[in-house]
Amino acid sequence: MSIFKTISEKQARGKVKKIYEDIKKTRKIKKIPNFWKTIANDPDTLERTWNSLQQVMKKGSLDQLTKELIYVAVSMTNSCEYCIRSHGLAAKKKGMTDKMFKELIAVVAMANETNRLVESYQVEVDSFLK
Amino acid sequence: MSIFKTISEKQARGKVKKIYEDIKKTRKIKKIPNFWKTIANDPDTLERTWNSLQQVMKKGSLDQLTKELIYVAVSMTNSCEYCIRSHGLAAKKKGMTDKMFKELIAVVAMANETNRLVESYQVEVDSFLK
Amino acid sequence: MSIFKTISEKQARGKVKKIYEDIKKTRKIKKIPNFWKTIANDPDTLERTWNSLQQVMKKGSLDQLTKELIYVAVSMTNSCEYCIRSHGLAAKKKGMTDKMFKELIAVVAMANETNRLVESYQVEVDSFLK
Amino acid sequence: MSIFKTISEKQARGKVKKIYEDIKKTRKIKKIPNFWKTIANDPDTLERTWNSLQQVMKKGSLDQLTKELIYVAVSMTNSCEYCIRSHGLAAKKKGMTDKMFKELIAVVAMANETNRLVESYQVEVDSFLK
Amino acid sequence: MSIFKTISEKQARGKVKKIYEDIKKTRKIKKIPNFWKTIANDPDTLERTWNSLQQVMKKGSLDQLTKELIYVAVSMTNSCEYCIRSHGLAAKKKGMTDKMFKELIAVVAMANETNRLVESYQVEVDSFLK
Amino acid sequence: MSIFKTISEKQARGKVKKIYEDIKKTRKIKKIPNFWKTIANDPDTLERTWNSLQQVMKKGSLDQLTKELIYVAVSMTNSCEYCIRSHGLAAKKKGMTDKMFKELIAVVAMANETNRLVESYQVEVDSFLK
Repeated sequence: MSIFKTISEKQARGKVKKIYEDIKKTRKIKKIPNFWKTIANDPDTLERTWNSLQQVMKKGSLDQLTKELIYVAVSMTNSCEYCIRSHGLAAKKKGMTDKMFKELIAVVAMANETNRLVESYQVEVDSFLK
Repeated sequence: MSIFKTISEKQARGKVKKIYEDIKKTRKIKKIPNFWKTIANDPDTLERTWNSLQQVMKKGSLDQLTKELIYVAVSMTNSCEYCIRSHGLAAKKKGMTDKMFKELIAVVAMANETNRLVESYQVEVDSFLK
Repeated sequence: MSIFKTISEKQARGKVKKIYEDIKKTRKIKKIPNFWKTIANDPDTLERTWNSLQQVMKKGSLDQLTKELIYVAVSMTNSCEYCIRSHGLAAKKKGMTDKMFKELIAVVAMANETNRLVESYQVEVDSFLK
Repeated sequence: MSIFKTISEKQARGKVKKIYEDIKKTRKIKKIPNFWKTIANDPDTLERTWNSLQQVMKKGSLDQLTKELIYVAVSMTNSCEYCIRSHGLAAKKKGMTDKMFKELIAVVAMANETNRLVESYQVEVDSFLK
Repeated sequence: MSIFKTISEKQARGKVKKIYEDIKKTRKIKKIPNFWKTIANDPDTLERTWNSLQQVMKKGSLDQLTKELIYVAVSMTNSCEYCIRSHGLAAKKKGMTDKMFKELIAVVAMANETNRLVESYQVEVDSFLK
Repeated sequence: MSIFKTISEKQARGKVKKIYEDIKKTRKIKKIPNFWKTIANDPDTLERTWNSLQQVMKKGSLDQLTKELIYVAVSMTNSCEYCIRSHGLAAKKKGMTDKMFKELIAVVAMANETNRLVESYQVEVDSFLK
C-alpha cells in the first residue's frame, strides 16, 4: 500500500482536478495512473512534476522515444519497478519494439558492469577526455 | 592514481597485444585509452569486456548513437566521471550534438527525481502495468 | 519471507531477551517489530545496532524529530520500504504531520534531481566551498 | 573540468541574465556559484531548477534549516561532494552548528547501515506498518 | 510478473536449448531457474552471461565460496532480492554456514556505514594509500 | 579538503587520545590514518565505529581476509575511493595477492551487471528460493 491514499478523480478539486483533466487529454488516456493519483496528495508537487515532465520529455533534438528509453535506463539502474513499467509502456506507445527493449536492457546491464570496473580499478581520466 | 599501473602498448604481449590492435583498428584511434590499459592487468577481463561491448553496442534495433546515450545515462546515474566522459565522446563521434547532450542530462535528472517520488510514496503498480 | 526466521519473544534467551525487554520499555511498545526479531538471529548485531541507535538518535543539538526526518530521507534515497515505513511511523510519533511528510518527500526528490545535474555536468567545486 | 564551460555573468543574456540577478538578490550573494553558471548552458533547466528549488525549499511546515539538513543527508547518501558542500554552507547560514553537522553525519551513516541490514535479511514489513 | 514471459524448457530451441542443457549439467540441477528462463528472451545475452559467469566464478586464486560471498555482498548493497537469494543458495551449496551468512551481513552493513562516513566527511586519501 | 580538519595526534585529548593509542597498538601502525583523524571530530562516532569495526571484522566463521574482501566489494559498489584503497591495503596485509584483487574486481563488476539484468527484467523469485 502506498504511504498516502490515492486521490480519486471524484475526490479531485481545484488544481488537482485541472491537472487530471490535462493529463487525460494530453496523454489520451481514460484513467489517471497511480503515480499521479498518489502525488496528488501534494498538489504543488503534482503541478510542478507534471509541468516539468511536459517540458523535459517534449520532442527536442532528441525524439520522444529516445527520451523514454533514457528514462527507462535510469529507472533500471535505480531498480524502480513502477518507473520501469510505466515508462516502458510509454516507450512502447512511441514505437519501442520487444527487440529494442531487450537491447536496452543489455546496454544498461553492460554499462553498470563497466562503471564498476572503472571505479574498482580507479581508472584515471585520459587527458584527451578532460 | 589507478590501483594497478596501466599496461602500455609496448609492454603488451599475447592476448593483450592482439586486443589492443583490434581496439585501435575497430575504433580508428591511435592511442589506447586508460580504461583498456588498466583492465589489461587482467587479460581475461580485458578480452571478455571488449568482446561483450562489441556485441552489445553494435547496431541492432537500436542504432549506435541511441545505445551510447543510454550508456551515458546509466553512467550519470552512477556518477561515474570516466564513463560519462568516454561514452560522451563516443556519442559525439556518432552524432550527439551539444543540444542533445543537454536534453539527455535533463531527462536523466528528471528520471532520478520521479524515481524517488515513486519510492518515497510507495506508489502501487497499476493493474494495467502488470 | 525473510532470509532467517524471526526470533519470537518466547524463543528469546539471554542477551536477546534482555534487549527485547529494553526495546519494549524504552520505546513504550508491546510487541517487538520484525526488524529486531530478524536481526536477533545475530545477537551481537542486535546488541550493537540497538546501542548504536540509542546513542545516535538521542536528543542532541538536533532534536529527535529532525533526526527521524533525516533517517527517512536516507531510506527514501536507498528505496528501503521497511525503513521508510518504520522511521516514518517513528517520526509521526515525534510530531511529524502529513504536511511535513509531503514536504520531506518533495525535498528528497528534488535533491536527487540536482545531485544528478551536478554529477552529469561535472560541476566544479567553487573555491569558496573548499 | 565541467562538461560544458560555465556561463559567466558577463556572457549571460535574456532568461539567464534575469535568473542570475534573481539568484543574487534572493540569496544575497555577490557571485553566482558554479552550479548555476554550469546548468545555465541549458536555460530551460536553469529556470525550471531555480523555480522548483524556490518552491520546494521555502519555509513550510518544515523550516528552511530542516529542509537543508534533509538535502545534505540525500547528497551524502549519493556521495555528491559539490551538493554536500553547497547545501552544507546553506545549512550553516540558516543556523546549523558544527555539532549539528556531526550529528547529521552520524544519523546518515547509521541509516545507511540499517537500510542494508533490512535488505540483507529481507525483513518483512510488520502488519502495523502497512 | 517479469517484463517478458519466461522461456520454458519445452519452448527452448537452438542456442537457448543448448545452454539450458549446459546449465543443468554443469550446476547439477533439474530445473532451470527463472533468471535464465527470463533472460533467454534475449539468446545473445543468455549466452554471454552464462559464459561470462562460468569464467568469472570458476576457482582461481579465490575459491568459489569466497566468490559467491562477494557476489552476495554486492547484491545486498544493491538491494537485489533475487540475487541475494540465488547466490545465497549457491554459497550454501559451496559450504556457507548460517553463522557465516550472518557475519557476511554484519560486514556488508558496517561497510555501508563507513562508506558514508568517508563520503560525508570527505576524508582525504592518505599519501600512503595513493 | 575534508569538511572538518583532522585531529592530529598532538591535539588528541581524553577519549580520542585513548582510541588513537588503541588503534596504533592493535593495528601495529605508527601513524593514524585520515579516516580516524577526521571522524575524531565526533568522539562518540570515533569510539562507536572503532568498537564496532573491532567486533565485526574479528576472525569468526569467516576469516579476516574474507571479511576484508567483502568490505572492498561493498566499497567498489558504492564507488568509495578511500574505502577501496584503505581496505584494499588491509586485505593485502592479510594475504590478498594481486591476482586475488583482480578476481575480486571481476566478480564485483559481473554481480553489478546481473543485478541490473534481474531488476530490468523484473525476474520473479523461484519458489525454491523463497
